This record gives sequence, C-alpha cells and structure tokens, in this order.
Amino acid sequence: MNMEAIETPIQSLGEAKIPSPMLREDHGGIDHSFVSDDDRILINIKRTNIEAMITKGISPPAFELAGPRRKVYFDAAKLRCAIATCGGLCPGLNDIIRAIVLELHYRYGVKIIYGVRHGLEGFIPEYNHDFLDLTAQRVSDINNMGGTILGSSRGAQDIDRVVDCLEVNNIGILFMVGGDGTLMAASKIADTISQRGLKISVVGIPKTIDNDIHLVSRSFGFDTAVDVSRMAIQGAHNEAISYPNGVGLIKLMGRHSGFIAATAALAQQDANFVLIPEVDFDLDGPKGLMAALETRLASRGHAVIVAAEGAGQKFFTDVNESRDASGNIRLNDIGPFLRDTIKDHFTAKKIPINIKYIDPSYMIRSLPANANDSVFCGFLGRDAVHAGMAGKTKLVIGHWNNHFVHLPMEATAGKRKQVRPRGKLWTTVLESTGQPPLKNDHT
Amino acid sequence: MNMEAIETPIQSLGEAKIPSPMLREDHGGIDHSFVSDDDRILINIKRTNIEAMITKGISPPAFELAGPRRKVYFDAAKLRCAIATCGGLCPGLNDIIRAIVLELHYRYGVKIIYGVRHGLEGFIPEYNHDFLDLTAQRVSDINNMGGTILGSSRGAQDIDRVVDCLEVNNIGILFMVGGDGTLMAASKIADTISQRGLKISVVGIPKTIDNDIHLVSRSFGFDTAVDVSRMAIQGAHNEAISYPNGVGLIKLMGRHSGFIAATAALAQQDANFVLIPEVDFDLDGPKGLMAALETRLASRGHAVIVAAEGAGQKFFTDVNESRDASGNIRLNDIGPFLRDTIKDHFTAKKIPINIKYIDPSYMIRSLPANANDSVFCGFLGRDAVHAGMAGKTKLVIGHWNNHFVHLPMEATAGKRKQVRPRGKLWTTVLESTGQPPLKNDHT
Amino acid sequence: MNMEAIETPIQSLGEAKIPSPMLREDHGGIDHSFVSDDDRILINIKRTNIEAMITKGISPPAFELAGPRRKVYFDAAKLRCAIATCGGLCPGLNDIIRAIVLELHYRYGVKIIYGVRHGLEGFIPEYNHDFLDLTAQRVSDINNMGGTILGSSRGAQDIDRVVDCLEVNNIGILFMVGGDGTLMAASKIADTISQRGLKISVVGIPKTIDNDIHLVSRSFGFDTAVDVSRMAIQGAHNEAISYPNGVGLIKLMGRHSGFIAATAALAQQDANFVLIPEVDFDLDGPKGLMAALETRLASRGHAVIVAAEGAGQKFFTDVNESRDASGNIRLNDIGPFLRDTIKDHFTAKKIPINIKYIDPSYMIRSLPANANDSVFCGFLGRDAVHAGMAGKTKLVIGHWNNHFVHLPMEATAGKRKQVRPRGKLWTTVLESTGQPPLKNDHT
Amino acid sequence: MNMEAIETPIQSLGEAKIPSPMLREDHGGIDHSFVSDDDRILINIKRTNIEAMITKGISPPAFELAGPRRKVYFDAAKLRCAIATCGGLCPGLNDIIRAIVLELHYRYGVKIIYGVRHGLEGFIPEYNHDFLDLTAQRVSDINNMGGTILGSSRGAQDIDRVVDCLEVNNIGILFMVGGDGTLMAASKIADTISQRGLKISVVGIPKTIDNDIHLVSRSFGFDTAVDVSRMAIQGAHNEAISYPNGVGLIKLMGRHSGFIAATAALAQQDANFVLIPEVDFDLDGPKGLMAALETRLASRGHAVIVAAEGAGQKFFTDVNESRDASGNIRLNDIGPFLRDTIKDHFTAKKIPINIKYIDPSYMIRSLPANANDSVFCGFLGRDAVHAGMAGKTKLVIGHWNNHFVHLPMEATAGKRKQVRPRGKLWTTVLESTGQPPLKNDHT
Repeated sequence: MNMEAIETPIQSLGEAKIPSPMLREDHGGIDHSFVSDDDRILINIKRTNIEAMITKGISPPAFELAGPRRKVYFDAAKLRCAIATCGGLCPGLNDIIRAIVLELHYRYGVKIIYGVRHGLEGFIPEYNHDFLDLTAQRVSDINNMGGTILGSSRGAQDIDRVVDCLEVNNIGILFMVGGDGTLMAASKIADTISQRGLKISVVGIPKTIDNDIHLVSRSFGFDTAVDVSRMAIQGAHNEAISYPNGVGLIKLMGRHSGFIAATAALAQQDANFVLIPEVDFDLDGPKGLMAALETRLASRGHAVIVAAEGAGQKFFTDVNESRDASGNIRLNDIGPFLRDTIKDHFTAKKIPINIKYIDPSYMIRSLPANANDSVFCGFLGRDAVHAGMAGKTKLVIGHWNNHFVHLPMEATAGKRKQVRPRGKLWTTVLESTGQPPLKNDHT
Repeated sequence: MNMEAIETPIQSLGEAKIPSPMLREDHGGIDHSFVSDDDRILINIKRTNIEAMITKGISPPAFELAGPRRKVYFDAAKLRCAIATCGGLCPGLNDIIRAIVLELHYRYGVKIIYGVRHGLEGFIPEYNHDFLDLTAQRVSDINNMGGTILGSSRGAQDIDRVVDCLEVNNIGILFMVGGDGTLMAASKIADTISQRGLKISVVGIPKTIDNDIHLVSRSFGFDTAVDVSRMAIQGAHNEAISYPNGVGLIKLMGRHSGFIAATAALAQQDANFVLIPEVDFDLDGPKGLMAALETRLASRGHAVIVAAEGAGQKFFTDVNESRDASGNIRLNDIGPFLRDTIKDHFTAKKIPINIKYIDPSYMIRSLPANANDSVFCGFLGRDAVHAGMAGKTKLVIGHWNNHFVHLPMEATAGKRKQVRPRGKLWTTVLESTGQPPLKNDHT
Repeated sequence: MNMEAIETPIQSLGEAKIPSPMLREDHGGIDHSFVSDDDRILINIKRTNIEAMITKGISPPAFELAGPRRKVYFDAAKLRCAIATCGGLCPGLNDIIRAIVLELHYRYGVKIIYGVRHGLEGFIPEYNHDFLDLTAQRVSDINNMGGTILGSSRGAQDIDRVVDCLEVNNIGILFMVGGDGTLMAASKIADTISQRGLKISVVGIPKTIDNDIHLVSRSFGFDTAVDVSRMAIQGAHNEAISYPNGVGLIKLMGRHSGFIAATAALAQQDANFVLIPEVDFDLDGPKGLMAALETRLASRGHAVIVAAEGAGQKFFTDVNESRDASGNIRLNDIGPFLRDTIKDHFTAKKIPINIKYIDPSYMIRSLPANANDSVFCGFLGRDAVHAGMAGKTKLVIGHWNNHFVHLPMEATAGKRKQVRPRGKLWTTVLESTGQPPLKNDHT
Repeated sequence: MNMEAIETPIQSLGEAKIPSPMLREDHGGIDHSFVSDDDRILINIKRTNIEAMITKGISPPAFELAGPRRKVYFDAAKLRCAIATCGGLCPGLNDIIRAIVLELHYRYGVKIIYGVRHGLEGFIPEYNHDFLDLTAQRVSDINNMGGTILGSSRGAQDIDRVVDCLEVNNIGILFMVGGDGTLMAASKIADTISQRGLKISVVGIPKTIDNDIHLVSRSFGFDTAVDVSRMAIQGAHNEAISYPNGVGLIKLMGRHSGFIAATAALAQQDANFVLIPEVDFDLDGPKGLMAALETRLASRGHAVIVAAEGAGQKFFTDVNESRDASGNIRLNDIGPFLRDTIKDHFTAKKIPINIKYIDPSYMIRSLPANANDSVFCGFLGRDAVHAGMAGKTKLVIGHWNNHFVHLPMEATAGKRKQVRPRGKLWTTVLESTGQPPLKNDHT
C-alpha cells in the first residue's frame, strides 16, 4: 500500500463556515446524521495487525468517512457546478449524474448545474459543445437509460484551457466521472486551480467496469457487467455441449485485471478455463492450454473458455505500441487470437472441433445499471456532492470495508487493483473450473 | 409459388386403420376435435383471386390441415420412434423434443423413443454416439434450457447407412428437426425407405432462425431472436449517442433473408440504416452508404446500422467458394468488413468517428425459447406426432394463415422466403429509419 | 359469425380525391405498395367451405385489407388529429401512440396532433385536462415505457359533449384505443358526428390484454402478458414443489375468456389445473376440483393451479351486481375465494397443505411491450392512420389470418371471442396438464 | 452489541490434527492460502474507537475469519454429511446446496452427502421423507432453478429425535440453512449433541431475504429480492401516473425490518412514501399519511407507496396472537389494510382516486439467485464446509466488513438488525422520496 498517499489529508479550499442547508427545516426537516472529518475507517482490519501498530504508537492508516458535514464552504445560492463523464461507457453513469443533480438541487438549493458534453472536449471552445442545463426535471428518468446523457469522449485536452473554462463560467465545484486517465487529468486540473489561487473544488468518481481501482473495493457498473456476462457464458456453454468437441470461447472485459472474468465464472459455473492478465499461462507444451483442452475434449466432449481481454498479451510478438485517445495501450485482441490458435491446433492434429466465439463487451457496458449498481451510484453521487459542498478538493469517492470514503486523488490514480493469484477469488475459480496450472514449468 | 409441389398430396405409408388411442377413455378422456385429410386451408386468401379461380373451375391451392386423426397407421404398443436435431442452434429445439416425447408417450402410449445424438452423425456407427432413451421424465424440464439435449452437427452422411440404422433399430417414425440441408437429406431418406419397401414415416420440422422457409409464414426461434436482438440495438444506440460522431454497427442473423434485421429494427426503432440481402446498396458514390452516413453524422452526430449477415456479399471480390459442413456457402463476414470500410472512409476524410461493432449471434441462438416460441414449438411437436402416427411421410409441419399445416417436403426444400422490397415489412423499415435508397442509379 | 355486420361496408366521409402525400418524392421516395378497397381477405379459409359458397353464387365473407391508399380524403396541411387511450393499461399503448404520431407527421405531413388526457375525460371541460401537443420528438422514446403517456380513465362521458369538443377544436380524425366499452362509445361518437353532418373520421384500435375481441385473431399486449405470466407460474411451481403438499395458485387476467391462462399454461408447462370462464367445473363431489387436488397431492405431493379471473363466477351466491366506471360487471375475486376454499377443505380433512397465492395482474399490464407486441402495435398505429387519412370512419383495425384488416365497428363491439372447449388450444391444455373434467356429471 | 456472545470463541469438537486434503497434489494442486484461527476481523472499524480501546488495554471485538484450515478434524474418507434447508424460500438456496456438495466432494473427498427433505421434518421417521443422495452430478445444474431441491418446511420438531437421526445415520457434519427459528433449533441440536458426547458438527448458514440478521451485514437472496422489487415499483408507478389521482401501493417483504423496502425505493426512485417497521407513522391527523397523500395528489396527481409487510402493525387493534408453524407471530396484512383505508378515506372525502395494489412477494422469493447472490452463496457454502471439516460447531457463516467470518450461534440467534432511523440508508430514502415525517407530534 502507498501509505504516504493514503495518509495525505484531503485538501480543502478553506474553512467551511456556513451551516449546511440540510440543517434547515424547509429542506425537508430530515434528521440527518452528519459526519465529522475525524470519522475515519481503518483500512487494514485484522486485529493482530492493528493491535501491533497501536501498541507501537503507530496510528493505523484510515480513510476519511464520506457523508454530509454540518458546515459547508460554498454559498449554495451563488454556486455553479459542472459535471463531466469521460472515457468508456459503464452502467450507472446516468444514475450518478442524476444523484449529483438532485442532491445539489433539493438538499443544498443549488440552482445552476452544467452538464459538460463529451468529457473534456466540452470545456474546449473549438468543439462547439454547449453546456447542458441540468435541472431536476431533466434528470428525473435518466437512470432507466444506458450510456450517459452528457456524452463522453476519450483523450486529453489542454489543462489550462479546461481551467480557463471553469474560471470564465464561474464554476465552484467540478464533478468528474472517469477512469485512471481522467483522474490524472482531474488531479492536474486541481493543481492548476490551486496555482491560480481559484476556489474551485474538483471531486472525482472513479469509473472502471473492470473493478480494478487501487484502494477501492468496488466500483460502479461491475456488478451489472457480471450479471450480463452470465448470459454470454450460458450461451457459450449451450453451444459447446450441443456439438461434438464443442468449444465455447467468451472474451470479457478486463484490460489489466480479471475481476469480471473470475467473478462471472463463479456466477455461472460453466467455464472450464478462465484466463486473466494476472496469471501467466502457456499455450503449447505438455501442460499448456492446448494440451489441457485436448484432454478436456477427450474426456468430456466439450469445453468453455472465459478470457479477460488483457490475458495472454505475451503471445503477441509484434508488441502493439499504439495507444488509444485516452492513452491506454491498445491491446492485441486475445479473443480472435485464441479462436484462431485453437482452430489451427486442432486442424493440425486432425481433431474436428466446433468452436464458437462470443464478445459481448459493447452490449454490456451500454446497459442501464442493475438495482444494486443503481443504489451504489446514488450514494457515490450524493457523497460527491457532500464532499464538494464542504470545500474538499482533489479527492475521489471510494468504497472500503463497506463504507463510502474520501481518498486523496494521488492515492489511487496511476495504480491498479488486481486479482491475487493466491487469494480467495482466484483459488475459488480454480476449484470451480478444475483447471490445471497451464504452465509447463509448474511443479 | 411452386404450384405443382404444393398440390402434390402428402405421401402415406398405407391406410390408417387403427382407432386412435386418443379416443380411448384411459388416455385422458379429452374431447378432442379430430382433423380430416379433407380439411384444407387456402394458401392465397384474397377473395377476388379465389372467386376468379373457382369460377373458372380451378380448385385453388390449399394445405392439408395438421392435427390428430381418428385412425392411425401404427400400433403404438409396438412402435419405436427416433428424433434428431441437425444444423445450427435455434431457440426452441428442446421444446420440440419435449413435445414430441410427451405426445407420443401420454397421448399414444408409445414406450420407446430414441434420441439420436448429434444429428445425422448419430446414425453412423463410427461416431460412437449411443441413442438416448427419451422418457417423459427425462424431458420434463428441458424446455428451460437453450441448445438441444440431443446435440447437433453439421454435414451430410451416407443416406443408405442412415436407413440401415433405422431398419436395424426397427424405427417406425423418424422426426427430423433441421434447416434446408436437413430437409433435403430427410427427403432422400424417405425416398430410400420407399425404395426398400420399408414402413418408416419421416416427418420434418423446419428450423431456421432466419424465418426464411418457403411457404412457411413463421418458423420457431425467430421471435426469440428478434426479442434479444433488441438489446443489441439498444446497446449500439447508447454507444452511438454517447460519443461525438458515434456509430453503432450490429450484425444480425440472416444469410439469405433480412427478416430478423428488419423486424428487430421495427421492434427497437433506433436504427438509421438497415442492410439486408434482398436489397442492393452501394457503399461509395454520391448516394452510397458512406455518403449517407456522412450526411447523417453531420446532421445528427450519431448513427446506428443494422446489417443482416448476408447483406452486401457483392463487395467481396475474392468470392469465397468454400462451404461449411452443412453445404452452406461460407459467407464473407459483412460485419468486420463494414466496420473497417467505415473506419477507412472517415479516416481518409479526416473526420473522427467512434465506431462500435456488436455481433450477438451466438448469444441469441443458444437461448431458451421465449413464451411465444415455446407455445409454438409445442404445437409443432405435437402435430408432427399426429402426422407420423397417421402414417404420413415425407412431409414437414408448416404454419400458414395462422394454421398448422402439412407440406410435402418437395414443396419447401431448396427454396427460400425473402423480404419483399415493396412489401409492408420493408417499406415500414424504410419509413421508420428514414434511410434513402443507397443506390447511385436510383431515380 | 355475425355475417351481416361483417358484410357492412366500411363507412366513408366521402370520396378520397387527394393524391396521397406518400406518393411525393420529398416524403422519402419509398416505393410503397398501396392497397385498394377491393383487396379483401377471406374470413373462413377452409377450401371446401369456400368452394361450396362460390359454386352456389355466394360471395364468401371477407375483410377489407388495411394499408395506405393512393388517394386520401384529408388535406394534411390543414388537418388536426386527436388520440385518446381509454380503460385499463395494456402493454403497447405508447407504441401505438408513437406509431400514429410518427406516421401522421412523417408520411402525411400532419402538423397538429393532440393527445387527449385520461381517455374520454379529456374531452369534457370540467375535468380541466389540457390536450398534449404530440410532436415527433415528444413521442420518440415513449415505447420504452409502460402505461400510456396520455393517461387513461374508466367510465362513460356525454357523447354530445365529446363531439362538441371535436367540433370546437376542428379535429379531422379521432383515434380511440380502448376495449369494448370504448369502442361502443366510439361508435356512438361516429353516429353523432354523422347526424351533425360533420366530417370527422373515428378510427378505433381494439385493446384487450385478454385477447378476446370478436373477429380479431390477436390483440396487442397479449403476447407480453403471456411472457410475464410465465414467471408467475414458475414462482408458484417452485413454491409448490418446495413444501410438503405444496399448492401454488396463480390468478391471471381474463374476465370472460381464458386465453392468457391457457396460453401461459402451455408456455410454462408446470400447471396441473387450469380454470377458465369458458369451461364449467365443480368444486365439491367425487369429480370436483377439491377431490382432484387431493388425488394429485396424494400421488405427487404438490400442485399448481392457474385460474383466469373470470373462472368459477357461479360459486358466488351473492351475485355482485355493481359495475365499475367502465360499465364492466365487477367480478367476485376467484383468487382469494379459491385460496380460502382450498384451505378450508384440507383443514376440514385434517390434511396439512402449504398454499401460496400469486396475483401478478398489475405488474403485467403496466409493462412496456415486448418485441413482438412492439412490432405489432407499430403496424396497428400506422394502419389506423392510413384508414383515417382515406376518410374511412366507424371502423377498427383488426388482424385476421395474418393480415391487418378493417372491421366495421358494429362487427366487433359488444361481442367476444372465447376459448373453444373442443378446440386445439384447450384440448392441448388438457393434455399438457393431465387435468380431468372436474365435473361430477361428466360421463 | 452483545459483546459477550461475540467474544465467545467458536466451539470445537476437538483438535484438528489431520492435514487438509486440500494440501494434496491430487486434489487439484491449487496453491490455497489457508486461514488461521488467529485471523480475526475487527467489528467496529472507526479508528478513534479502536485506538481508545487498545490504549486502555482492551482488545477490540473481532470475528474469526472463515476459510480453509491446514488441519481438519474429520477423516473425509469416512465422513457422512447432511444438509437441510428450512423455512421460507429465498433466492440462492440451491446455490448453497450445490457449493456445499461440490466442495465436500472435490476439495475434501467426502463421498456420502445426504439431502434432508423438507427441513426438520426430514429427520423424523413419521414423515416418511427419505434422504436424497447428493452427488456432484445431481447438483451440477440446480443453481439455475429457484426454490430448494431439498424442499423445506416450517415448524419445530423434537430436538432429541433429530439428534437420534443424526446418530443413527452416522452423520459427522450437519449443515442447516434457515432463519432465526432454524438457528435456534440448530443451537439446541448442537447442545444435545454435546450433552450426548457425540462428535457432530453443526454449521448454520443464516437465511433471511429481509437482510435483518444481527451482526451480519448482508444475507443471501436480498440483492435478488431488491432487483425484482424494482419491477413491481415500476409497474405501480406506471399505473399511478396513467390515471387521475392514481395511487400505486406495493407491499414488499420485511417483517421486522425495512431493508428491502428502503433499498428497492432507492433502486427505483419512483416511490413517494416508504413505510417500514422501524419508523412509526400516523394515518390520520394533519400530519398523517392520509393528509400527506391528499397533498401529494392535489399537487402532482399521482402517488406511489412502498410498504414493508411489518410496517404499521400498531393499527391492528385485534392483535393477532397466532403464530405460524415456524413460531413467527402472524402479522396482520398491512397491504389490503392500507388499500382499504385509503379507499375509504378518499371515498368519505368524495375525492375519486384510482388505487392499484401489488404484492409480488411469492414471485420474488421463488426466483433463482441473480449473479451477485450466486457468487455470494458459493462462498457461504464453501466456507461452511471449511468450518465443519475443521471440527468447528455451533457457529454460523456471516459476512462483515466485506469478509466472510465465523459467528457463534448465540451471537446472532434471537436478535435482529434493523434500519436505523437516522442512518444513511433511511435518511437517503427520505431525501429521495421527499416524504414528510408522517407523525402528528413531530416538531
């Protein structure tokens, strides 16, 4: 763990002196339980570790709890806010937009909320994307739709020009929903704001359908993705069992981590091989995937393979160095590669097989959130608003040990969570698939 | 219409002399309404046409009505039946197997029903596929699963050896569920049976998820396919509207006909262009697809394209002459071709676009049938049993003008139904998409 | 069949003299195939019947085919239209509204389309329901929502005042979507219009989720209802098999007809008893439902019962004479009655049972249409527009022998289609459930 | 918190001395990470609290971590296990049965696993329920079905006779899945076993779709229940908005806690009033529900009410003292009560309303688990096996702070988790519904 970054306190624009509008009778009279900055949640919660640290006089690392504060920094009557969604689609984007708008409007009384069109492009005049006016009415039904009503885009923009736009439009809080690249841009935007001496809060909501954000136990959209991946695995299984030597191959999302592939394989236990970026495997040789597949077909007559998109990148000799507009390295496509490799292998061995390849990615990420993700997104959006109203900045809203928390942006940006090869998730996948190590040098 | 083939009477193994077991009290005592071979359903039902024909003394073409007969040909106590499913998966296969088994068992008292494994392979000893014993209990829940519990396969087998197998195993009725190739094989099997003087009925149930069987208004699985295609179109739409110049491209099933693409486009009216095999289109030139797409993106900022897999085959100069194991010509893949062509076109024009390609085919065909298809498959299976028990042979169970009917195999095999370019379905698609003719020589 | 009413020609406001705007290049240039009033579809299509009639010189009854005409009656530029939805919710109402608006707007160029709020109430000033302006943009996404954006209501209103409203607002075509009561009101509205010498077309689209409209083979929403009823039957089955002497009881829609109950029982074949209004049954006595249920529980340990809401009304001695606002006789509730009767019976016999009662009606009728119903509703809406534009009036859009047709309102209003006790649907239900006659006097 | 019970160590049958079969190469060679009994997870994780306790020399309460141990107590080759499911249905029961069987079989090599039929009844000879033989093949597909393949029942049985049965059949581990009553019975079974000096482990898996188990943050089936409740709320909303003064009323599960009602209301934000057992409300008076409903209808024309089944029990003057077979107090039915009260209120006030009542409970609890619950149930089942194999007894498998843990049975049985009226969940519901306090004495 990056202890230093975690311990960095959340930055603030200044002292929050204004009593929260949520305390006022006319905003509903709800008996809120407010949160104090001293409420911090332990990160490591094994008792022996914690006892050891405290006994040695070390304060164990902890996250600041998210939630409404009694005092706010901004005067809601004069405040303008902006929301941008960046990068790839993910179920729940509209739920988050909706929650932010409704919370700002009904809880705090903020009247002007701009929707920035197509991610960072929306700040740059040349793109001609006007701001959307986000009213409570405009957003009331958007949670039933997939995608993002703001639109998105990939790619960097000039940070100074983004801050120019915020300044010119008199924005007080900027909410940015996006992945690793977006959060790095958000971090630079916050730094530039600070250098210019402006009073603009930047609050990030980390987005990755792959669920691989460092120090965040769960990210939105992941649960929906697993839900729908199930249907693809069932389909592949039905195809596989229906044909002699039937092979069903599914590629699921997961550029650098196998959480979707591993979890979906547990949710729909028809997979016989799961391939993820974190666990190396061989194709050829006596213990490689091809040999294991042969053994499986010989004994059972069919096989289902689930591959995360980032698995097996080592097989691409012509390393693809190009990057997409978001700066992500373009991966070679493991799906068609595996399909063709398997075909060729069995053709060479004169063993007839029936292979079917399914890639459901774009159907999954464009869906509306399921119930679980909808509820989760609602909390993320509302807690982002509370953080911004309190004048906090350069932070993201995370989730850890079942609590919503504040993380300093530098604690999470540029790092990744991965499936631990000896952890409970992966060993359970190995159990449920029965797959061997797939490594020739495994002893 | 192939009038001659239609008018060919359904072949019969001989006179049906045995009172149907359905008449017996102990088989449930249901007050069935039996069908006579004289019950025939008009094919063309426009009154002016029919009046003109009859007035001229011509008997207008009509199909024999399907359903239970008062007399049956086979003695159920001694009868053995066999069921085979062939070719690609299609929602509803298990519903049909289930209906055939339950009807034979409970209505007629047939005790021995064999499931032939993996299509025609299951008849040929070298493949070592044992018959499955299909009991009422074995099939009772299979309707909840996709695929086929019998397995399937592609490809022809020696017809004589198939008949050998039927003869050796003392089969009286063979039910074959499959596409055009299967029905042609079934036709040859029936001829060989006849030449050998055997008393084996061959009853076909036509299977094509594409819904393009000649003289059959609806085939099973099609409705489920359209249902699920909707989700793919919604996904493509959400992707398209979320990005600047977003293009969603979906390839749907339909090798020779655009029924799925056209109907799905009406069910989920987010498509801007629908491409089907029956309607020619140009890519380049002032009225071609590329120009139309440019116009659309310029005016609306996004576009959704639905392409049937058989559309645009003329664009493949290196005509692919290979055939798959079922004898179908292997089509070049229009999906990736269109995706790449569109990318190249806009790259050349320096117009940035965001294109997402979705191919849901294998996820769709491996699903269980929806309610509508389940009910439909139940009737197909039961009517196939009634036809076989009555000693009819070399026929398929069809559906026409809302009735289940008998068609001689030669009336439907080797021909195809297609979307009529000036018919109600296609002109409605044109209306709902607003797509232009996409032909440079259109006047 | 009510031959006289069927043969009544569709009424017309006058000669259609204006070339259809669909012929004009600037309305899309689609090569429509237009329909002539001489295109009529036979109702009875058994060949022997038709040959006998024609030979005797009788023209067999036939429906006028629906679809676009080459000449229209109204000048689209000056035309105002109105749409009202009445009675209970049904999946597909919004699809129909959408199809009518888009067809009027894009095909014919009609600019002013009013949405009448809350059914007939919307015509009566005292209710203070303003018309909605229905534009193409307003309706573009409504097909994804259940219910009706216009709202609905039950109950009659003064016909003269409805016509006053049409006259004052200068309406040329009124589209009314509703059940039997609505169509009878529509019929009177058309008569009053005619008496006043006004030129207002009244086009009905029959709505009944129960699918029991006389002379209409399929009505919209029915397929969706069957689809979702499946889930209720599965739930009841799972409850039943999980407990000793488990009984699952589901009430499904069907006031006067058992189409939903019967079709759902075929779609999800877990029901052991299906009760419908068309087939009488006894509760007590040696062959009654209670005895049959005892036998079933003794032999199998569980049972599933599907009851249409109109089944078994004879058991209510205190005949409920009240009517709801739509004039429908309020039925006594068979669901709780059966639940309590079964409980009491087995309590008296000291046989412990576990009964679970499910009533999914309001969850079903408020859903969006499934794909099949969406497509169907689109055609209904568009054909209603074609009929109205042609100056036809006092008709409904029906579906018969797989074609969309025109029916005079008096042919269908006030009558009902029912499940035929000896027909294919019901005898198949008896087969698949194995249920005995449930009548003590059955021989 | 019941500190004493929590701190009670997990009971054990004796020292686990046998190396776990999971360590053996031939059981898959997976590189498991084993768990030690010293691995304990803090319950309260606020840093200030923990620091204060430890500084004072108090060891903060913590749960034992669940998972595989290096040493086991039982010799798998000779071990017989039994599984029983008790009480009401809940999505995921079959997933748990499946996980227990597969883990015992494949990980530990246990060959004899009995399925006890219909809960505690299955132990008592008079009921004549034979044990099911649970093999890996028997359970492989059961996760796709709702209900429980073992069956269930309500009600207590003689504890001594249950233990007799375990003894006679030589059972080593008994897995019991059930609610509060079941766990209290399990606790007594464990005590009797101990008194007799037997070596039988009793492992509980707490089941409550209501998610209200004390000290367990999440229970299986809850997420699926919320998912499907969404559909009921959407239906009620569509009914409500479609009629003048439309009121949609949904009763959801939750006898003593409002977690389902509150979470579903956040997942589908169409509810205007949410009523739960934890929060008192008045019906009449100036601030009661009726007045609030009047205000809502006057201003917006429709309203949606979600009521947990345990809400408003104070309104029943004839307190229902009867209990069901499981010993639960029979609640009066708040759903019909509210429906009728609302009807009567508005009838008396001569305000016409349209109220629709939906009770989806039995449709929800009989469903298969969604993906999230399936994965969760898999872990519960496997961790139950690890606990039993290690010789632990009288414990349940819980989930806390995102970890699977062991709880002594007495820590959780007989207590309940409830929605905290000032906690994040409920205040967020109040925000999203905008509902007032509904109490006349609220200041």
